[in-house]
Amino acid sequence: MATKPSIPKGTRDFSPIEMARRNYIFNTIRQVFGLFGYNQIETPSMENLSTLMGKYGEEGDKLLFKIQNSGDYFNGITDEELLTRNSLKLASKFCEKGLRYDLTVPFARFVVMHREELQFPFKRYQIQPVWRADRPQKGRYREFYQCDADVVGSDSLLNEVELIQMIDMVFSRFGVRVAIKMNNRKILTGIAEVIGQADKIVDITVAIDKLDKIGLENVNAELAEKGLPADAIAKLQPIIELNGSNEEKLETIAKVLESSETGMKGVEECRFILSNAAALGLNNELELDLTLARGLNYYTGAIFEVKALDVQIGSISGGGRYDNLTGIFGMPGVSGVGISFGADRIYDVLNQLDLYPKESVNGTKVLLLNLGQDEAAFCMKLLCDLRKAGISAEIYPDNAKMKKQMGYANGNGIQYVAIVGSDELAQGKVTLKNMESGEQQLIDAQELVSALS
Amino acid sequence: MATKPSIPKGTRDFSPIEMARRNYIFNTIRQVFGLFGYNQIETPSMENLSTLMGKYGEEGDKLLFKIQNSGDYFNGITDEELLTRNSLKLASKFCEKGLRYDLTVPFARFVVMHREELQFPFKRYQIQPVWRADRPQKGRYREFYQCDADVVGSDSLLNEVELIQMIDMVFSRFGVRVAIKMNNRKILTGIAEVIGQADKIVDITVAIDKLDKIGLENVNAELAEKGLPADAIAKLQPIIELNGSNEEKLETIAKVLESSETGMKGVEECRFILSNAAALGLNNELELDLTLARGLNYYTGAIFEVKALDVQIGSISGGGRYDNLTGIFGMPGVSGVGISFGADRIYDVLNQLDLYPKESVNGTKVLLLNLGQDEAAFCMKLLCDLRKAGISAEIYPDNAKMKKQMGYANGNGIQYVAIVGSDELAQGKVTLKNMESGEQQLIDAQELVSALS
Repeated sequence: MATKPSIPKGTRDFSPIEMARRNYIFNTIRQVFGLFGYNQIETPSMENLSTLMGKYGEEGDKLLFKIQNSGDYFNGITDEELLTRNSLKLASKFCEKGLRYDLTVPFARFVVMHREELQFPFKRYQIQPVWRADRPQKGRYREFYQCDADVVGSDSLLNEVELIQMIDMVFSRFGVRVAIKMNNRKILTGIAEVIGQADKIVDITVAIDKLDKIGLENVNAELAEKGLPADAIAKLQPIIELNGSNEEKLETIAKVLESSETGMKGVEECRFILSNAAALGLNNELELDLTLARGLNYYTGAIFEVKALDVQIGSISGGGRYDNLTGIFGMPGVSGVGISFGADRIYDVLNQLDLYPKESVNGTKVLLLNLGQDEAAFCMKLLCDLRKAGISAEIYPDNAKMKKQMGYANGNGIQYVAIVGSDELAQGKVTLKNMESGEQQLIDAQELVSALS
Repeated sequence: MATKPSIPKGTRDFSPIEMARRNYIFNTIRQVFGLFGYNQIETPSMENLSTLMGKYGEEGDKLLFKIQNSGDYFNGITDEELLTRNSLKLASKFCEKGLRYDLTVPFARFVVMHREELQFPFKRYQIQPVWRADRPQKGRYREFYQCDADVVGSDSLLNEVELIQMIDMVFSRFGVRVAIKMNNRKILTGIAEVIGQADKIVDITVAIDKLDKIGLENVNAELAEKGLPADAIAKLQPIIELNGSNEEKLETIAKVLESSETGMKGVEECRFILSNAAALGLNNELELDLTLARGLNYYTGAIFEVKALDVQIGSISGGGRYDNLTGIFGMPGVSGVGISFGADRIYDVLNQLDLYPKESVNGTKVLLLNLGQDEAAFCMKLLCDLRKAGISAEIYPDNAKMKKQMGYANGNGIQYVAIVGSDELAQGKVTLKNMESGEQQLIDAQELVSALS
């Protein structure tokens, strides 16, 4: 009768140890966001489909999880329409709501809906799950968390500087060495302008990105193949072979882009951000990288991407400046800039490098064994003192065999076991055992709190 | 073109101040759960409909939010079936997944799926949203949080004692005065047995509950109306007029239930729980209340319910012991006991009584004004020191009018404003203004951290 239960493909249960690790990640990110004056908001898991549809491209519309209307969802649909079996078209009749696909569109909707109550510049962060009906595969889930910080309503490049500081601080706290890569949409636009090939910018960045792997000659061949004329490829040479310090790179780029106003604006923005970040001191390297072409249709200024140096994995954080987030909802001209941390990938990185501080993932500090009713009653009083002192403590609830109780402590990674048998009870003592070292000492019951503090 | 955006009925956006308050509530509950050795788990927002259907009654099935299958959801449905327009029956063809309706069924599913990896007794807590397609109304939402702590795999009544301590500690920390009411399913069963009316137990508790309002005579009349014979009503008299201390009540009940083994077991359980809780000392009153009939089909032992004393609102926490949570998934005989905190109602109570500790809902502590590029660069350095010291601090990103910047600090409830104009910059000083008192002092820039610590 009862069938073996399962969970939907691409979703996950999180066990206590996994939750402790995830909480460590979320709390670290949250603390850094807070230190920089970003405030948390939350939006509903469900949005109206009219809010979500058409915001993520045609493919995105298909990947939205749609929620069937309650009650008679056939209402208002003719038999003829039904029999067309047009699943995409009828979805919008069967369903009015969908699950959040990212945090960006709901944030834009939030800003527009609450514009009268908000202080601009508005600095918000949001840490919530999103859902995508993607084909599940290793490291790709249908429900996963995004951690976004954005400021809207300010053009100041100090925001970019601070977001870089935040990335730097988050990964420093994790103990993960990263390269923070930066590009600027305006520089890319400038390059396209200068060589007269505005539509080829993606081909160009893709080709340049291969320089280390395939060499200059092959990069140039690829550019020619993509339809770039010889003079454009010639003009590109200094950009393709770009190297040196960020300063040196900017000098080279500035020479190439001299004639492009937009391009020079991009150079200037990069200079400001790089020099300010350098003056404040970063723990991680900040590197100008023209091959960074993340979200090209979306970003209008700085573009960021973060790579872990000691683990082979895709980008673990990224972001940039956009100029018209809220335009889709009828509130044009609001510039913003933001970053996003990929919690699931960061989790994989921290797992691989085993970087969780011990105290951050500890649960119960001490288990009091249950060796009889009177002994347990005595332990219940000790527990009150321990918890008053902020020490996570528990009693084994049943008077089970000692071996079973010790097994429970071991299985849960509890650091200490406190034993009150009849002898200890008579003397008002406790035997305290360190589960890691195996050391064991007999102490006065009143000393238990201080022994564990 | 752009339409004014909205969110689905019964859902909410949470602003920074609302989030700060909600986080204070969740964190307080989380800390108490942790102090008692409960560990956090999370389950996916979506469960297979086969996991959810039939677990909440016929009405519950209708209130499940169902997620439409991706791709061609018409697949496998004949035209004839389609034209029946049977929305309930076809829902299970269109949809394989649904949103979590509570935390209990997913927890049961979790325990059964992970039984081999878990340590029993398994003490878990879970703080996650649930979704119900209820008609939205004041105080009732379609997405809301539940905060549950349960222990499964232990019969010990020490669990009940600790759960009462946890309720007591949570509300003490909130500063909310509550009455913790307790009943026991076995006592109710005993009463029904003794008067020979097993099926009338709900009618009896409903009638008894009205004693204060309608008086003894009317209660007895109502019982007669519900079909209770005169001798049964006579036997019930001591129970209806039950009063005095918990001890006195238990003595009276024990006399009535002498002949019922189950009833006497209930009395014994109550005695153990009450005497142990009393010995440990509670801040709030724990009261035996036979009219408590919460979840009668579900609970098998102790039943808890918590009422706020200073605010008119329904129950703000509750729980009890159940004996067959995991049976529906093919794992019988696992006893458990748990409590649940109603975060949304607690939020309403704390709002009404204005009980948020100031420091718990503070965002940014100090705003550094932006009075020019050099001044801002100087401030960016000060910000590094402040954040290193754990002080939430931000700079107004744009060099806007002073009034606008001060308005931002006011609007966001920021406690201090630090002003570095050209004079201060030349002297290495900062003017620090307390936004609440209006007080203002000129200090050395190096003193800023200590002045704000």
